[in-house]
Amino acid sequence: MKRFSLNQATTRGWPLPELAAGCVAAGVTQVGLWREEVQEFGVSATAELMRSSGLSVTTLCRGGFFDRPDWLSSNVTAIEEAATLGAPVLVLVSGGLPSGSRDVDAARAHIGESLGTLVPYALDAGVQLAIEPLHPMFCSDRCVVSTLGQALDLAEPYPAAAVGVAVDTYHLWWDDTVWSQIARAGAAGRIACFQVADWITPLPAGVLLGRGLPGRGCIELRRFREAVDATGFTGPIEVEVFNEEVWARPGLEILADTIEGYRRFVE
Amino acid sequence: MKRFSLNQATTRGWPLPELAAGCVAAGVTQVGLWREEVQEFGVSATAELMRSSGLSVTTLCRGGFFDRPDWLSSNVTAIEEAATLGAPVLVLVSGGLPSGSRDVDAARAHIGESLGTLVPYALDAGVQLAIEPLHPMFCSDRCVVSTLGQALDLAEPYPAAAVGVAVDTYHLWWDDTVWSQIARAGAAGRIACFQVADWITPLPAGVLLGRGLPGRGCIELRRFREAVDATGFTGPIEVEVFNEEVWARPGLEILADTIEGYRRFVE
Repeated sequence: MKRFSLNQATTRGWPLPELAAGCVAAGVTQVGLWREEVQEFGVSATAELMRSSGLSVTTLCRGGFFDRPDWLSSNVTAIEEAATLGAPVLVLVSGGLPSGSRDVDAARAHIGESLGTLVPYALDAGVQLAIEPLHPMFCSDRCVVSTLGQALDLAEPYPAAAVGVAVDTYHLWWDDTVWSQIARAGAAGRIACFQVADWITPLPAGVLLGRGLPGRGCIELRRFREAVDATGFTGPIEVEVFNEEVWARPGLEILADTIEGYRRFVE
Repeated sequence: MKRFSLNQATTRGWPLPELAAGCVAAGVTQVGLWREEVQEFGVSATAELMRSSGLSVTTLCRGGFFDRPDWLSSNVTAIEEAATLGAPVLVLVSGGLPSGSRDVDAARAHIGESLGTLVPYALDAGVQLAIEPLHPMFCSDRCVVSTLGQALDLAEPYPAAAVGVAVDTYHLWWDDTVWSQIARAGAAGRIACFQVADWITPLPAGVLLGRGLPGRGCIELRRFREAVDATGFTGPIEVEVFNEEVWARPGLEILADTIEGYRRFVE
């Protein structure tokens, strides 16, 4: 359990103090947090709660959305929040096509340039930005970065301390080039975080909330973990599941199921 | 309009005699047909209806589903049906993961071997099999072939007259390698068919019936058509849209809208 991290999205709705206490009781020492929930509780208050609970923050989700007019100020703020929380990584969901646009190449190029603008802030704060390739079904409305290869191409011009990638099983499992791209990411020191969720069908309307707890779906989760580890990665393994049926249950139960799935199918 | 072909799925529910008459009235000379509808009307009766209406059949959808126990007999029958209809191409939806399996590599390898078994039947019948890469959101349940590159790798061991690929904008638009793979497909003589549909969000539950008529979404359809044409491809351009709201309208109206979208956004 040393590497396990509970991403807060898996137990959405669980108040932060209860989440912290539940993690401590379950022997969990790491969590991934989300900006909205952190802001609601207060950034400093969250940092203090985590510290006093003995919990490390593995990632803050999420920056990005470079298609929005306020992308620069909102990402600078997100980097500051990550630093306050002691989170070494800010996960970026880079945004889809601007409204009315069909120019996916331009949207991708804009992300590359925007990253360059953020690099000094990231280095100053000691926070690594993690470009997260999202499943291609999110290409138009959430993230035009669809493969790990694309994410690495975007990261390449910048120092690895400033720009890495997020390896998320849910988004990448279908891609037969993912194994060589994981090796490439590891060799470049750019695996900023490793996140786990399972793929289940049928997908719900809107397709956002259809992820499965580890083991409930068809992804070779252990193969992913082994591929990431084979590069020398020894960082946290975050379980991040968005699922309305899961969320309807008490946080403690979800956490127990998440840990059980992690032990059986990932560890 | 010389290259336009109406894929029957776009006007689902339109009885074949009305579809044929509607196409003739609109100056459409080519259609893509679906096995279920053809079988219901009768394969020979359909062939005769098409002939007497002066309509060519550009593709028959669909063979494939190599994950099912009866894949061999059903594909052999499908090849025969395509030959009876004078359709030069049988589109293959290759099937997802077998029930309970997580082994996507094995599923892909099985498709490659199954194609080899079908090659003699295809050559005998003069029907080219078209491996259709489906959007990665269908990887687990419909088709483990997710990219044009994968489809071409699977086709490569076999003669182009027997095994080609389907280029469908809906499935491939998110992939930044698609342009080089279209060039590769064309150079190898493997573009068996070119199908057009647009990408719209939000996706409906199950994600199958969320396609848009040409121009209603975010895909650079003309860029696709030009890329396919740049390889020397001069074949039909099929519009194939699955959309329940579209299907609720009269066939003649759908056809008119389809032609208008084709003229404005594809031609």
